[in-house]
Amino acid sequence: MYRAPVNEIAHTLKHVVGVNAAIESGKLGDLSEDLLDAILIEAGRFAAEEITPLRRVGDEKGAVWKDGVVTTAPGWKELYHRWIEGGWNALSGPVEYGGQGLPTSLAIATYEMWNSGSMAFALGPTLTMGAIEALHAHASDELKATYLEKVVSGEWMGTMNLTEPHAGSDLAALRTRAEPQGDGTYRIFGQKIFITYGEHDMTDNIVHLVLARLPDAPAGTRGISLFLVPKFLVNEDGTPGKRNDVFCASIEHKLGIHASPTCTMIFGDGTVEGTEAGAIGWLIGEENKGLACMFTMMNNARLAVGIQGVAIAEAAYQQALAYSQERRQGKAADYAGEGMAPIIHHPDVKRNLLTMKALTQASRAISYACAHAIDLGKAGDGDEARHWQDRAALLTPIAKAFSTDIGVEVASIGVQVHGGMGFIEETGAAALLRDSRIAPIYEGTNGIQAIDLVMRKLPLDGGAHIKGFIAELREEIDALRKSNAEGFGKTADKCAAAIDDFAEATEFLQEATAGGRQQEALAGATPYLRLFSLAAGGAWLVRGALAGEDKARVALARYFAENLIEESGALKRRVIEGGESLLGAEAALAS
Amino acid sequence: MYRAPVNEIAHTLKHVVGVNAAIESGKLGDLSEDLLDAILIEAGRFAAEEITPLRRVGDEKGAVWKDGVVTTAPGWKELYHRWIEGGWNALSGPVEYGGQGLPTSLAIATYEMWNSGSMAFALGPTLTMGAIEALHAHASDELKATYLEKVVSGEWMGTMNLTEPHAGSDLAALRTRAEPQGDGTYRIFGQKIFITYGEHDMTDNIVHLVLARLPDAPAGTRGISLFLVPKFLVNEDGTPGKRNDVFCASIEHKLGIHASPTCTMIFGDGTVEGTEAGAIGWLIGEENKGLACMFTMMNNARLAVGIQGVAIAEAAYQQALAYSQERRQGKAADYAGEGMAPIIHHPDVKRNLLTMKALTQASRAISYACAHAIDLGKAGDGDEARHWQDRAALLTPIAKAFSTDIGVEVASIGVQVHGGMGFIEETGAAALLRDSRIAPIYEGTNGIQAIDLVMRKLPLDGGAHIKGFIAELREEIDALRKSNAEGFGKTADKCAAAIDDFAEATEFLQEATAGGRQQEALAGATPYLRLFSLAAGGAWLVRGALAGEDKARVALARYFAENLIEESGALKRRVIEGGESLLGAEAALAS
Repeated sequence: MYRAPVNEIAHTLKHVVGVNAAIESGKLGDLSEDLLDAILIEAGRFAAEEITPLRRVGDEKGAVWKDGVVTTAPGWKELYHRWIEGGWNALSGPVEYGGQGLPTSLAIATYEMWNSGSMAFALGPTLTMGAIEALHAHASDELKATYLEKVVSGEWMGTMNLTEPHAGSDLAALRTRAEPQGDGTYRIFGQKIFITYGEHDMTDNIVHLVLARLPDAPAGTRGISLFLVPKFLVNEDGTPGKRNDVFCASIEHKLGIHASPTCTMIFGDGTVEGTEAGAIGWLIGEENKGLACMFTMMNNARLAVGIQGVAIAEAAYQQALAYSQERRQGKAADYAGEGMAPIIHHPDVKRNLLTMKALTQASRAISYACAHAIDLGKAGDGDEARHWQDRAALLTPIAKAFSTDIGVEVASIGVQVHGGMGFIEETGAAALLRDSRIAPIYEGTNGIQAIDLVMRKLPLDGGAHIKGFIAELREEIDALRKSNAEGFGKTADKCAAAIDDFAEATEFLQEATAGGRQQEALAGATPYLRLFSLAAGGAWLVRGALAGEDKARVALARYFAENLIEESGALKRRVIEGGESLLGAEAALAS
Repeated sequence: MYRAPVNEIAHTLKHVVGVNAAIESGKLGDLSEDLLDAILIEAGRFAAEEITPLRRVGDEKGAVWKDGVVTTAPGWKELYHRWIEGGWNALSGPVEYGGQGLPTSLAIATYEMWNSGSMAFALGPTLTMGAIEALHAHASDELKATYLEKVVSGEWMGTMNLTEPHAGSDLAALRTRAEPQGDGTYRIFGQKIFITYGEHDMTDNIVHLVLARLPDAPAGTRGISLFLVPKFLVNEDGTPGKRNDVFCASIEHKLGIHASPTCTMIFGDGTVEGTEAGAIGWLIGEENKGLACMFTMMNNARLAVGIQGVAIAEAAYQQALAYSQERRQGKAADYAGEGMAPIIHHPDVKRNLLTMKALTQASRAISYACAHAIDLGKAGDGDEARHWQDRAALLTPIAKAFSTDIGVEVASIGVQVHGGMGFIEETGAAALLRDSRIAPIYEGTNGIQAIDLVMRKLPLDGGAHIKGFIAELREEIDALRKSNAEGFGKTADKCAAAIDDFAEATEFLQEATAGGRQQEALAGATPYLRLFSLAAGGAWLVRGALAGEDKARVALARYFAENLIEESGALKRRVIEGGESLLGAEAALAS
């Protein structure tokens, strides 16, 4: 089963994305390298020894709904309580509300491990983390005083209530309404779907953040406000009191993450016994500015979903590697031992394993780089902070979409490496594939991430930010050339060519959007996102290999460059030349 | 739900792979274009109206095992009987045993439709089809007289018993033994796993074909014999009689194809009440030549599994297309209607749908071309027959591996197009993905198909066959250039470049294998198989578009050429340059 790759995680944080340099320059507060190491080791232990063993029961038993009550899988409630008692929920939370105030990069690294242990488990705290951020940034002091400490500790969990049947990707269409009661509270009426951990038995209270419209609100996204709606109203002494009029009407029967209840939530229809119709809520932030508040949650949630892709890929790789070392079939040229060869000795199996590992490590570097940029965006001053905020904004759609795309790809290869056993549920390889498949969808589909990248992120800093980023990638390859390090083969040439492709495609898209050729830019968005990811992933694998100076990282960077990154030319041409055949192909879809 | 794409299937058969020309030259016996059309229409109706509605109950209820008895899903037994009463099982069976003797290409086209209806349903008949071929080619007249008519009609189903716990891809390791009884019969002892439809309630008898070793058999694959082991011994009057000592110890809990029981079969341990220990079997073909007999089944089974990939892809495409026309979110530049735009108007969704359709159609052309080559290999004389036998041998691993790879890819894109609904089991998109995932694994993993292609198929006819094949593909592109047909954009250039890449990679691999650089050839096998598929798929989409002269096919061929086929250069370089970084990368997998 899963063993946390603490060395690789630490190496990526310290030497690839630059946490060590930031520690030295004092930008990460009290964090020291020793503290970072200690936290990663302990988190790795908890993920491997406590969470992973409950992954399967979570998948098999799942969460169960009955009469509005959701019961989580056997042992899960206890697991959650051990986890919050370890202080893990509070790791990056605000210090004034009991959090440890540690950097996002470190928190994201722990989330990788929680998700490798069980994605269904880590998903609840992921949503809670988003709720903490939104409350801390936008809620009134009174609301903060009542809720934040308990949500930071994890004693209460948080949820995000956005989606409605007609409003998924397009929140402008949402209909849930909020009626002001004149006493500072509101009554909320409406239905929300796909609400993760919307109802469960793990905590005494659940703090719902809910998007709704005020009676006089403008149409579209400018008329959406954010409300806090607790499952139980809070007594003066801070304990949960009377039940609020919100309940879970059903949970979904899903492909994966069975242990994570996906709830249909009904607000305000008076079904909850002993309540008046109308769920009582409090406004967070300003009226009609709910979307801005929600974006506080969503951006970090996108990174947090990206890390799920990394985490599933890591777990799938480890499982496939172990199986390929044990399972024996046929003969292999480089196996001189007795009997049939362990299948890892077959070149095609080796290709699968290297592809899994290289994609995993590239997506890890990208996701951690995004997290580190978030930290520096909070730490620096003026222009420097803005630079890092732009960097975080640029990397968020990459971290979300590339990592979750490769999460599915790697989990699928993992099934393949297992042969027939991969299709048998008891093996667990298929469950990772099932779990992985939601991540490219939720928190904004990967198609939407690609659009966000092209339409909103390429123009950052007047188009200069992406140019600077590309120049930085080139520096990594220059460093490789200057190093004369051995074992890299054609890595420098292949990576440099990919960066050239990336630069060319970037320029094309910037010109297309500036020139009003939006449709062409939209048509090329998805291949562009992949091209971006390969160019950045290659450069960062090189950086890691140069920093680590060990054979394994050099061999992996070379495999990535000489095999996976080859796709860059095709991706560039799809961006630049492929749009016309796509946009003009209505006829092909007419039948 | 699924509607059989009868027009596209007929067009591919008649004009892309050449069935019409073969009908005219009299190579396909009594088949006429009218008969072909009538059969496709009726099969399409049965698949859509009878099979498809039972897909979901098959997935949800699955096959159930209790005390050795397997009960299929509600309605499935009746469905099967309606299907065999329609004569569908006998379509391509030998005329002297009640079959209709129709071509493999037509049978494979119907199998596409059965599999689109429900892969779990079509799988049983698929195995039976293999059993018919093996019995017809290798069994004694006595065995044929007893069994073949009933298996051809489908009154009894057939199974293939190959795999054992230690012998999956490597059959040399199998241990099941057969002891001659001196009366022409044998007693079989052993355990087989992953036996599809090994036990069920759909037919009165089940005819197991079982690989086993005789007591004095040589080690390895040269010591394997094939036996016929019926579930019930057959009375003199041809009815099922006494139970044989073979039973189903359990069925697997699988990711998909839940309605298809995957059985662990125990032969000869005396568990079956009223039997003596030892399952009674009859030798098929010669002693120790079982593998050759089995290959008769396996080659056609590989094509039949390939068609499952096509079928799932078609079903997934249709479902995603329908959803994208109904579901509305956001605004789109090319949608001028009221309210939110149907998501098909978003370029990124259009990209997904075009990719699905283009890959489906390419894999269909490849699979049908393989089937047609099988027919011509049986029909022609001398050199011509050998040419087509080689062609079928060449295309079998492509049809199997490319089609099943894209089956998974397309089903996964189908989930993505559905957004959050794709992850909800009731929608059915996820079930297609679950079903699809076994096809790249069984009947020889796709990695093994790639090895087969490079090591055994490229050398056919002294290496000349593949060269002739490549020349044929070039002719398709020449025909496009000469046609001056409109709407193809850069299709000819892109396809020609892909064929050049394919030719170059082929030469490299032929030199590598001839020069004893086997490991390098093995390392490049999988990217080579994909490159082969793209080059052939592109040429055949062009052929279909030129023949059909309709905008839809032209637009699809162009999309394939200007977007998907772009990958060819990268694939060629992975074949030629990628091996070293792969073979030398042990260190990267050591941790």
